[in-house]
Amino acid sequence: MDTNCIFCKIVNKEIPAEVVYEDDKFLAFLDIRPHSPGHTQVIPKQHYRWVWDVPNTHEYFDVAKKIALAQRKAFNTDFILSRIVGDEVPHAHIWVFPNREVEGDPKDFEGNKKKIIEALQ
Amino acid sequence: MDTNCIFCKIVNKEIPAEVVYEDDKFLAFLDIRPHSPGHTQVIPKQHYRWVWDVPNTHEYFDVAKKIALAQRKAFNTDFILSRIVGDEVPHAHIWVFPNREVEGDPKDFEGNKKKIIEALQ
Repeated sequence: MDTNCIFCKIVNKEIPAEVVYEDDKFLAFLDIRPHSPGHTQVIPKQHYRWVWDVPNTHEYFDVAKKIALAQRKAFNTDFILSRIVGDEVPHAHIWVFPNREVEGDPKDFEGNKKKIIEALQ
Repeated sequence: MDTNCIFCKIVNKEIPAEVVYEDDKFLAFLDIRPHSPGHTQVIPKQHYRWVWDVPNTHEYFDVAKKIALAQRKAFNTDFILSRIVGDEVPHAHIWVFPNREVEGDPKDFEGNKKKIIEALQ
């Protein structure tokens, strides 16, 4: 853990987040500045600087894909986007988010979280 | 194959492309409108509408990561971006590209291709 890292703090529940998925290695939660309803950040729990540094990429991308498929169902669209950037927060993260045309309020975090969690069942 | 699809035509060598990687299932080639030097498109050879529709995602993301790691070496940077969008060309594709601060001319396709191919060795 990097004690100055905001995503490590989210992993450790020191900072609240709208978590849509969690397992022993990865966490997925809603972005607080959503591009679209249900915009999700997928991160490894362990601190890695870049996505490309994460060793278990298969598992990591599996979680990203799981979220994308749930968003398809939750927001009734085939068109899900993803971005790997990484210069804003120094902890590996993958954005997964529906296109902007989907119905719903991007800021309805509670409602969007519920939709994704239901679709993940 | 979709006969109207430009990426299927690239797979079939009907349209030329600066190919940096090829195996029996996937192809990676330089984007003709690069955001940065070495900007690469990674596609499945078989026609799928969306990245999320490709069944063998492990292999697909392995190729994307392979390209990202080669770009790190080729362009002397840790910061490699990736995007999945998909509304412009209806054939699954993943962008993998260095940040804009790296040295080199994005339009030097021949030189950038060579750098990536060498880094892949």
